[in-house]
Amino acid sequence: MVPLRTKVNKRELILTEASKLFKDRGFGGTGMRDIAEKVGMEAASMYNHIKSKDEILELICFKIADAYTTQLSEIANTEASFQDKLKQIIKVHIDLMIHDAAAVSVANNDWKYLRDEKKEEYKSIRKSYERSFAFVLEEGMKSGEFKTMNVSVALFTILSSLRWIELWYKPSRDISAEELEEELSTILLNGINI
Amino acid sequence: MVPLRTKVNKRELILTEASKLFKDRGFGGTGMRDIAEKVGMEAASMYNHIKSKDEILELICFKIADAYTTQLSEIANTEASFQDKLKQIIKVHIDLMIHDAAAVSVANNDWKYLRDEKKEEYKSIRKSYERSFAFVLEEGMKSGEFKTMNVSVALFTILSSLRWIELWYKPSRDISAEELEEELSTILLNGINI
Repeated sequence: MVPLRTKVNKRELILTEASKLFKDRGFGGTGMRDIAEKVGMEAASMYNHIKSKDEILELICFKIADAYTTQLSEIANTEASFQDKLKQIIKVHIDLMIHDAAAVSVANNDWKYLRDEKKEEYKSIRKSYERSFAFVLEEGMKSGEFKTMNVSVALFTILSSLRWIELWYKPSRDISAEELEEELSTILLNGINI
Repeated sequence: MVPLRTKVNKRELILTEASKLFKDRGFGGTGMRDIAEKVGMEAASMYNHIKSKDEILELICFKIADAYTTQLSEIANTEASFQDKLKQIIKVHIDLMIHDAAAVSVANNDWKYLRDEKKEEYKSIRKSYERSFAFVLEEGMKSGEFKTMNVSVALFTILSSLRWIELWYKPSRDISAEELEEELSTILLNGINI
């Protein structure tokens, strides 16, 4: 029997390599054989760790969704100011995009290939994430920390303004994750105007 | 012979209906027959107005690219403050997305199906648009109107924060184009903070 610890590591390795392949070649363009090759395993023995390509996609998407959701809920439940909460949420998005780039890209783009039931579950987690994020904005407006504005407009502007980083960022850019977080927080919280 | 005026109108009609079909079914999923049917023409007589599906895609993409480029260059060349220039550029994006929604969506998403040479031309127009936009931001920073920050980060944050509107906006939303422009300008120029 494969020891549990090794099994978990192998699974993680399979997910990591699969994320990169899905990102580069698309979910449809990647076969279990390609994944096995990258991981350095026989395709047959990979099935000891994972059932199918569908299962790999599910694990990647829900892992990322869970990372966002857990961190948002931790932030929302602190006593920090709404400004600080928003800064921390922006940081979560940028950190995940930079440190788990391939998996975030798969979760953002390939979730539509999830099987029907899982796709519905994924969409409902995303909706609920948006609702919780909107609630932080709404409360921040009520508290007088944020300008009063259409909550959906504010929410989607923020979410969308964070999306390009996934496509643009690479370690060779002359800006660190911290500087990016600082600049994005500044634009969204205080604007481009001096 | 078909009078020139009617010919231009027919061509416009073909582009309008083709944009909607490309947006709904994708460029690959739409045939010349589908377009002819929507326009209410025989496929054979449509070829009096347009050579191919590739030509339709080209006309749509370059029409939109031209609309953005012309307006940006007009705005950049005025004596307005940089804040006002930025507001006007934001307005151009939102107006085009709202009033020419299907064509903008095709230009944003289906340009990758342009033929090689045209695709390169299109990409270089986009690059040059981004450079001109970046120049407005850079000059605004130098003038002291805008905060000093990484120009690429500011540019892509703005461009990306305007993209979601294309997917979200429909006339049934309880917000007008003017209100959207106002809110987006406020967030980007002055931030969410009070």
